[in-house]
Amino acid sequence: MKKIKGTITTPRGFKAAGVRCGIKKNRPDLALIYSEVPATSFGMFTTNRVKAAPVKLSIQRIRKKYAQAIVINSGIANACTGKKGLEDADKMSEIAAKELKIEKEEILVASTGKIGKFLPMTKIEKGIKQAINELSYQGGEKTAEAILTTDTTIKQIVIETDIPARGKGKVKIAGIAKGSGMISPNLATMLCFITTDACIAPDALEGALKGAVNKSFNQVSIDGDMSTNDSVFILANGLAKNERVKTWRKKKKLRIEDENFSYFCKALDYLCISLAKMIARDGEGATKLMEIKVRGGAFPKEVRRIAKAVAISPLVKTAIAGASPNWGRVMSALGSAHTHIDTEKVDVYFEEILVVKKGEAAGFEREKLKEILEKDEVKITIDLHRGSCETIFWGCDLTEEYVKINKRYF
Amino acid sequence: MKKIKGTITTPRGFKAAGVRCGIKKNRPDLALIYSEVPATSFGMFTTNRVKAAPVKLSIQRIRKKYAQAIVINSGIANACTGKKGLEDADKMSEIAAKELKIEKEEILVASTGKIGKFLPMTKIEKGIKQAINELSYQGGEKTAEAILTTDTTIKQIVIETDIPARGKGKVKIAGIAKGSGMISPNLATMLCFITTDACIAPDALEGALKGAVNKSFNQVSIDGDMSTNDSVFILANGLAKNERVKTWRKKKKLRIEDENFSYFCKALDYLCISLAKMIARDGEGATKLMEIKVRGGAFPKEVRRIAKAVAISPLVKTAIAGASPNWGRVMSALGSAHTHIDTEKVDVYFEEILVVKKGEAAGFEREKLKEILEKDEVKITIDLHRGSCETIFWGCDLTEEYVKINKRYF
Repeated sequence: MKKIKGTITTPRGFKAAGVRCGIKKNRPDLALIYSEVPATSFGMFTTNRVKAAPVKLSIQRIRKKYAQAIVINSGIANACTGKKGLEDADKMSEIAAKELKIEKEEILVASTGKIGKFLPMTKIEKGIKQAINELSYQGGEKTAEAILTTDTTIKQIVIETDIPARGKGKVKIAGIAKGSGMISPNLATMLCFITTDACIAPDALEGALKGAVNKSFNQVSIDGDMSTNDSVFILANGLAKNERVKTWRKKKKLRIEDENFSYFCKALDYLCISLAKMIARDGEGATKLMEIKVRGGAFPKEVRRIAKAVAISPLVKTAIAGASPNWGRVMSALGSAHTHIDTEKVDVYFEEILVVKKGEAAGFEREKLKEILEKDEVKITIDLHRGSCETIFWGCDLTEEYVKINKRYF
Repeated sequence: MKKIKGTITTPRGFKAAGVRCGIKKNRPDLALIYSEVPATSFGMFTTNRVKAAPVKLSIQRIRKKYAQAIVINSGIANACTGKKGLEDADKMSEIAAKELKIEKEEILVASTGKIGKFLPMTKIEKGIKQAINELSYQGGEKTAEAILTTDTTIKQIVIETDIPARGKGKVKIAGIAKGSGMISPNLATMLCFITTDACIAPDALEGALKGAVNKSFNQVSIDGDMSTNDSVFILANGLAKNERVKTWRKKKKLRIEDENFSYFCKALDYLCISLAKMIARDGEGATKLMEIKVRGGAFPKEVRRIAKAVAISPLVKTAIAGASPNWGRVMSALGSAHTHIDTEKVDVYFEEILVVKKGEAAGFEREKLKEILEKDEVKITIDLHRGSCETIFWGCDLTEEYVKINKRYF
């Protein structure tokens, strides 16, 4: 497996386009991702009780487990928009379907942006038509840009898996994402679109995506808020013509795990974790990526609760922003996580430096620690010393800039 | 019942003092509250797994249900300090006991401030002796000041209950509190000390305090962080010589609720809610008090979860800081609260103005709304339309100043 240069259109048979339809000022705000053939698909969505219209629509459509295109707008979330919102989301797919000459049921829809506003459907219609006109193998970069809101950078990655394609080359997977504010696990406020030319069975695709999302996007928090629009989609069009990836295969009458399935999962995990970290690093106002590793836990739930409690604590986040070696806040945050840990066994490390030993201050050189905390990536490791469960959670620091951005945005 | 002027020493038989012992620069940092006679007592403490030494000590001592004095320091929390920390907390009570000529077991201890540092015991000893020298009926104001950390104002209130004292006058209750950062329910990071001259049975005092704390300090959040040192103490010395307050009394062989118990609870509720609101209003960097009322819920847990989710949402808090009528963030926050509500039935009001009707934007005048949001107290009411449970939760806005304060504090 290796990371290669490219975009969402690098896997075989995908075209894309990002255009400006006029929802946002001077920035692209409408995107289309298209597979030349119908693709095996799966999607995962926000667990927020308030679900945006495109989420409701796509949840229905993904049940069929295949799709051919995704139409996306940024700037307006089409959330809390009732019946009209649902009609608008459906209309987006209808316009695209007509131009692409496919069924609207084969088109997934995603939106991100302000809640409670209706989509300007005339602009959207013009935008979709333009995007379809501009669909190309070179449209990936613009597509990655058109899905952003307050993000400061595009987030994209391409992986070449170890699965051989027919003839020559390997199966490829590519992903783009947008994040920035309102990011919290299950899912983060984020959109993520993944394309792959793998030929893969629907249940294998579903299993692989669920596994990858749990290790990545569900382990990220910017501000603890969970959005109404979070969606992750994957389209696998099979154009690599590889031997079909299944979760298992038969060998001498025994079921064994399909080697290619592990290759696929490994690549997809890496892709999703990379995008999740890009989202955390580009959190609104963030200057630093925080990685919280909790190990030595008795249960998976326990390590996750603690990692999340530390990652979302405003006091830990501001301390990291100020490069302040305030381990007391880490202790206070981990203690508040509703677990049954024995805090007098806990060790805490900032990078490699032991700052808390058995629940008390360890002697450490403050100057050296300060140096470490000035870096743009800070790792905190917490060892509970009561079991063998571990987890990693990502977050970012909390700065004045976060407040500034969010005081104004409406 | 009425609010009257006064301090923690206004109830009969209480003396107090606040002095500077040198933990903090140029500000009082050591306080003592003393009752002339042993008092019926109760205490409630943080649920954080990491408990400061004074909390561990006081949890033991309060089991006896009576105490005569409380010794408090600010500036250092004496948390994560292991065995030495426990010895220091015990030593604080020992020094005070010797001077006051009472048993150390009758003295409660509280600390607030930085985590992980040891108390400067020489300074503390000198401070306690000085405080005992200065103990007086006029020491309440200085005591209220000595317990503060990043608070910008003292928080005190005195209530005259409707319970007649012997001879003339009424039973009085007084309270002081400190809050500011790291405030979250169960309990908020806060210290609160309550004195009353009521003669009251231990179980009645316990019941009254539990009820009041659940309606007040457990319904406040500044930043979602829960401290290691939260403590609420009440001392009831009986010097009003009122007819002893019990939870019930016999009348014609029937158990009926004691009228004076309801008076006492009503006054204590009011006192605790007032202090809780003062804490929220004075949250670090806060410019506004947020009151979140959730009604029409099916279960008590549901309304509380929703109220808390909205009150702690950084996006709601920054919107309020910016006087931005961003109801979409309220919808997104309430939807993320892990409940089974039907979001298409939800109404949301900012003060009296309906902004969301059945989950969608209600037509409202943005200018009028903006005006309301400019005020220093913002009420958000959420109606779930599915039952009769309701709750009120308090919080504050999130400003750049909060970040600034917490980047530096170590």
